[in-house]
Order: sequence, then structure tokens, then C-alpha cells
Amino acid sequence: MEKIVSLCKRRGFIFPGSEIYGGLANSFDYGPLGFALKNNIKKLWLDRYVNGRSDVFGLDAALIMNPKVWEASGHLKEFVDPLVECKKCHERYRGDQFPNAIVIAGKSVCPNCGGNEFTQPKQFNLMLKTFLGPAEEQANIVYFRPETAQGMFVNFKNILDTMRPDLPFGIAQVGKAFRNEITPGNFIFRTREFEQMEIEFFVRPEEASGKFEYWKDEMMEWMKLVGIDMKKVHEFEQPEGERAHYSARTIDFEYDFPFGRKELYGLANRTDFDLKNHSEKSGIDLRYREEGSEPFYPYVIEPTWGVDRTVLALLDSAYDDSDPKHVVRKLKPALAPYKAAVFPLLANKPQLVQKAQEIFKSLVMSHKSLVPVVYDGRGNIGKRYYAQDEIGTPACITVDFQTLEDDAVTIRDRDTAKQERVGVGELVEILTRNDGR
Amino acid sequence: MEKIVSLCKRRGFIFPGSEIYGGLANSFDYGPLGFALKNNIKKLWLDRYVNGRSDVFGLDAALIMNPKVWEASGHLKEFVDPLVECKKCHERYRGDQFPNAIVIAGKSVCPNCGGNEFTQPKQFNLMLKTFLGPAEEQANIVYFRPETAQGMFVNFKNILDTMRPDLPFGIAQVGKAFRNEITPGNFIFRTREFEQMEIEFFVRPEEASGKFEYWKDEMMEWMKLVGIDMKKVHEFEQPEGERAHYSARTIDFEYDFPFGRKELYGLANRTDFDLKNHSEKSGIDLRYREEGSEPFYPYVIEPTWGVDRTVLALLDSAYDDSDPKHVVRKLKPALAPYKAAVFPLLANKPQLVQKAQEIFKSLVMSHKSLVPVVYDGRGNIGKRYYAQDEIGTPACITVDFQTLEDDAVTIRDRDTAKQERVGVGELVEILTRNDGR
Repeated sequence: MEKIVSLCKRRGFIFPGSEIYGGLANSFDYGPLGFALKNNIKKLWLDRYVNGRSDVFGLDAALIMNPKVWEASGHLKEFVDPLVECKKCHERYRGDQFPNAIVIAGKSVCPNCGGNEFTQPKQFNLMLKTFLGPAEEQANIVYFRPETAQGMFVNFKNILDTMRPDLPFGIAQVGKAFRNEITPGNFIFRTREFEQMEIEFFVRPEEASGKFEYWKDEMMEWMKLVGIDMKKVHEFEQPEGERAHYSARTIDFEYDFPFGRKELYGLANRTDFDLKNHSEKSGIDLRYREEGSEPFYPYVIEPTWGVDRTVLALLDSAYDDSDPKHVVRKLKPALAPYKAAVFPLLANKPQLVQKAQEIFKSLVMSHKSLVPVVYDGRGNIGKRYYAQDEIGTPACITVDFQTLEDDAVTIRDRDTAKQERVGVGELVEILTRNDGR
Repeated sequence: MEKIVSLCKRRGFIFPGSEIYGGLANSFDYGPLGFALKNNIKKLWLDRYVNGRSDVFGLDAALIMNPKVWEASGHLKEFVDPLVECKKCHERYRGDQFPNAIVIAGKSVCPNCGGNEFTQPKQFNLMLKTFLGPAEEQANIVYFRPETAQGMFVNFKNILDTMRPDLPFGIAQVGKAFRNEITPGNFIFRTREFEQMEIEFFVRPEEASGKFEYWKDEMMEWMKLVGIDMKKVHEFEQPEGERAHYSARTIDFEYDFPFGRKELYGLANRTDFDLKNHSEKSGIDLRYREEGSEPFYPYVIEPTWGVDRTVLALLDSAYDDSDPKHVVRKLKPALAPYKAAVFPLLANKPQLVQKAQEIFKSLVMSHKSLVPVVYDGRGNIGKRYYAQDEIGTPACITVDFQTLEDDAVTIRDRDTAKQERVGVGELVEILTRNDGR
């Protein structure tokens, strides 16, 4: 894990947030390469599940919603974690994660100071609150959404009225959510600010089981597509007593992260709980209507993908240090921050530099709506290969003296290190083909 | 303006936020078509200014930063609006927007209740604050960023260390920012939650004037590219006394919105104020170093594009109701939510429906990473044309009985209403060409 974190920082993937001011409790900023990787993941997801389908509609709801939404959904009352505090050093812990702390707090030992007396567990709401408008008074309290799901339920009728979809259909959202975690940690695994990709898929009640299986298969396909190491993926079927109150069935897709087996994605059958509940609380009828039958509440199948957790699982899955002196990050070409790197064989030969720059610029132009290309004219060629391998660039293109005569270059494959001689005119087609979308 | 707002809601572009719970003060949710339009704008911008260039680096900093950042930048003290309150009805107003309210409050009349006594103007900070961690105490106060710029200054050294760029180079960010506006309004023009696209372009001090002109031209090019009506665009050079304290020169690009001439984009020469200031406050040296010269603070040219304001300006620029019964939204093909619509000529002929569905599916597959395609088999063909014109779909493809014999379709152009007969096999190429990127 430390190797991944340090490589992320050194290579411009992920930096500690607000670093020059000492950081901010487990917050992170995505650098140029992490930004590209994360964007490529979101783009692939949107292409696959929104643009590439006619039965899923995109939505981008505001992060701040009317607090009545959270009152209705139960988040105001129930989205809580038990909090215990060491009476000696006042360090705070999440009760359910602190051994035996909830029930028999007095018998635990504080990892911080060794104290053994704790406060009684107190219910602590995880939503981040703020005030809209100039006065900090009760009437102006609002919350940053702790999940993307409610935005889709609240807009269910808007989608029905404007898109007039037939069942089954989905509403999809990609965006930030916020949770005031008592114990954030494990790099980008648990942060107070995170990003989700989520679909609420509305189905006839009798179709719910079948569509649950369908989305389970889809999520498996997605993981293979992006290159998550499937040997590290485990399905965890949540037993009845442990599921959220709205769920008839929940599966967690867990991943063997370097710090343990933890939830990567989730899939739930939320039944008709949300639409029924919001109908009652808002007084707006959210039933689905069609000719020849009574209005009814569709069931909801909800697949949820964590964006940051996808990044982390990919950084782990793609990390190959079988040769410890030569780390290779085997990212799928469609997700790699750079699709290709262009080098002059020697940095001090102006003809080579000029030709390499020319090729680089022509690739940038022809690839500008795909994954970008990078130029590197520093250091020696071996070092440049190593650097590109470490950041996961699938192809390195080298311009040598022969190029000036035959207009051909050497293209080196990241995973096999094999080199091939190809014409400059073929590069776009080769890179596009390798993209594998 | 009312026409645009109502069309936005009716056609699935933009809905009032949290609508079923009575909304939330001027907040909005982007529906499927608005989501697509907004995404297409952001994608075009990223392709043009990040992926398509080798001198601009993408960044995605956390929305919540260490409060020391805002202390250093001056936002904690100076990012304030003057607030006055009517003593009778307690309605609150932004002093500088309320006629004569700041200096001679007693002589103004409250538009809400007619009262004429007001409180003295009070300085009100516009940052949204929240608490990180379980206790609502001073030490845990943090702020949601009121702008994207500071994230780029704070990461300046990280970019230098990891990307080793030569001057001039830029850092680019697209993302949400939050301002607790006293008087939000005018649809998506002024909301408390909004999205920016911004570049901090670092240059040698002596290059600053030239690069300011360069980005001024670039911003004009961008407006033409996306289809903003240039007759409605005006450059406003901020006079010396009105500029922000860090700026040596600021231009606002203003647009004639239906509610008046207002700021659309901005361009500023921030000098070396930010890097110098953050160096002093953080104790981290943010000077640029290169062989053969003393370390120095680069100047910063900052072009800023509002995402929501771009959407609004485009909705206005593209809106053509010269025939009031037939509204056409002349969006550029690359930005239109759907690139094409596919219809069966008659909705009740299974052979036509089947063939149209086939063509639709093949287009969805081949276009999945471009702008999506929509199928409509409802109502009559004239109504479908009108509906697609209203949402801005550049091409309508109709399958008729002849199609079953000659495998050709009618393709109708949104702006000219001209129809052409083309082979099904040519469709992908025609649509891609029309995309005009």
C-alpha cells in the first residue's frame, strides 16, 4: 500500500489535499494522471450505461437538496454511527469498529493513550450540514448529499413526464457525495468527500429478481472490462438481519485491498420502498401509469460503483513489481492516462527532437478526443521506458536516425517490452485499435 | 426567459431542485438532456484545453480544503457582501444591488413590504461552512471552496515536481464551487452551487501581457466554436479602482441575457500575487527554478468559464422562435444532447418499427463514445420533427416503406428542414462528419 501511495504522489496521480498547509484529514487531490485515469473510468461508464443504452437516462442533481428529502429518506434520523470518546485523551472512535467498545466500553483500551474509560456510545449523524442564506439559524440548515440515490427518486416524476419511458428503465448519476466519517482512512478508500456512479433501475415488481441477476452479471462484466483482478473480487451476500431496512437483497462486491477485504461496489433490491415513501411524505403520486392496468410503484434495482474505490482497485490490480527494480502498471489502454509516449532516441540531436515533436503533435491532434499522448525528451531512453511503464502508458514510440530516412518508428509494448517497426502513417490506426473499446 | 425556463423543464433539460418537496431556493437539477449538453460542453473544453495540448495539466482538487488556504487567500476576511435587512419584514438584501441601500438605507423602500427602515450594512462572508469531525467546534470548521483557482495554486509545487513543465504552462480544473449568495436568481445564472472551468496559466512576468492577449483570443474562439451569439457578447475592461486587489488587468466577457447584460466569462492577470502570498503564508517556496537564472515567481493569466452560464447562453443563443409555432434550438452538433433521432414513418407498422429499431441500435453501438442517438416511435412524424427541433437534434432519420426495399432512409436537417435520401450504410460517416469536431 505504501508503495502505491508513494508512486501515486511521485508520478502525479494523487496528492495529499491542501498539502502545503499541512493537509486536511485524509483528503486528496487528483493530479494530472489521476485526473485522466478517473475521467477515463467515468467516461467508459457513461458510454456503457447511459450513452450506449436507450433505457438509462442521465441526471445531475444538485449536491445540496431540500432537507425534507433527508427527513423523508430517514437519513436525518438514521444515518448515524455510534461514537465513543476516550475519557482520558478525548480521542474519538467509531463504536462498531472499536473492539467491544459499544457494549462494554469500560473493558477496551484506547489505542492512543492506553486509557480504559470511554463515554457511552452516542449516535452521530454523518451528513455534512451548512447554512444557506445569511443567518445561522435552524430554518437555514441544509445538508450535502450523503449519496446520489435520493436525487434520482426525487426526480422520478420529472423523468416520467419528460422522457415518457417504458419499464424497465434507469436513471444514472455520477457525482460527489459527503459523509462525515468518524474514522476516514486507507488512502482514497474512505474519505469524507467521494464520488459515486449509480443507477436506479426501475422494474415491474415481478421482474425484480431477474433484473437483480442481470445487474449482478453487468457489474462482473464491468470489473473484467476495466481490468480489476477478479481473483481478488468476492461476492458477499448480506444476511437478512444486516441489510438496510429498505432492501430485499444486497450483494457487496468486495476486493482484497492491501489493507484487507473491503467493499468495492454494491447492488441492492430497494423494492418499492423509496418511491412509496417519497409519495407519502411529499404528497406527490410517484406511481407508474400505463394503459390497461392500475397505477403501481415500480421496484428499484440499484447498482452502485465507487469512483475512487475503482481507481484504488485498478492501481492495485495493475501494479506489477515482479521485477522490483522495474514497476509496470498494466492499465487497460482505454483507461491509461496517456495512450502513447513519443521520444527522440537521443535528446541532444535536433533532427530527432524535431521529428519526434512533429509526430507527437500530429498524434495529439488526431487523438484529441481520445486518450492523450505525452512527449518526453529528457534523460536516456531506458529511464523514459521505465517512467512510462510506471504510469501505465501502453505504447512508447521512438524516433531514431533511421526514421529520418524511412519515416518509420519503433513502437514498444508496455506489457511484453517487445519492439516493432511501423510506419508513421500507421500510428493512429494502431493506437486506436489497441484502445480496445 | 420564461419560454426558455419552461421549455427546459418540459423537455428534460433542467428541473427545479428538490421539486416534489417544494424546491430549494434557486437550486436546479440537470435532466437527461441538460446533463448531456453540459457534459458535451465540458468534454469539448477538456479536449481543447487539456487533452489536445501538451502544456496544460488537469487537476481535480477536493472541494473541501484546509481553512488555512482561505485564510491565506484572503477569502475568510474579504470574500464578503454587504447585507442589509428591512427592519419591518426582516427581508434581507445585498446592499450593493439594492438602490441606495448601503449609504442612505433609510431613504430606500423595501420591495417586499414597503418599509423604509433598514439595518446598517453588515459584512457577510459568502463561503459555505461545515464541520469535519464529530464536534461542532471552532477547530473543526471548514469551507466549501468558493472558486476552483486556489486548488491550482496550492498544487503548483506538486505539478512542478511531478510533471517538470517548462514555462509557460497551465493547470486546469473543472468542478463545483459554492457561494452563499444573498440574492441568487435568474434561473441557472446565479446559484449557490455552480460549476467552473478554469485555467491558471503560469508565465514569465515579461510574457504576461502577451499571454493575456492570447487567452483573450482563445476565449473568443471558444465562444464561436460552441455557438454563442457573438452579437450579444461584449468585452468589459474593468477599470483600475474596481478590479480585485490581486489583478493587474481584468476583462469580463458579458452576454446580453434575457434579463440584462451580465458576466459570462472572465479573464484576469493575477500577477505573482497568489504564488508569492501562498509562499509567505505556507512557508513553502513556490518559486520556479531553472538553470542559469535566479528562482522567480511566475505571473498567472487566469481565464475562467462558467459551465452553467455557458449552458444558459447557449440555450438563449440557439433559441429560434421566428416561427412561434415551431421552436428550433440551433445547437452545434457536437453539443446537441442527441446527434440524431431515428423514426419509423408510421408507428403502427411492425416492419417499419423493426427496421428503425435496427438502425437505431447500430447507430447507438457505433456512436457510443460520441453523442448519443434517440429513438422515437410515438405520435405522428410532424410532431416528432417538432419535438427534435425543440431539443436541438441536428438530424432526423426516417424509415419508410421504400427503406425495406432499397436500404436507404430520409435524413432531415434541423436548420434547413431539407430532406435527403441516403443509404443506411452511409449514416455513421454522415453523422460523424456533421459533428464538426
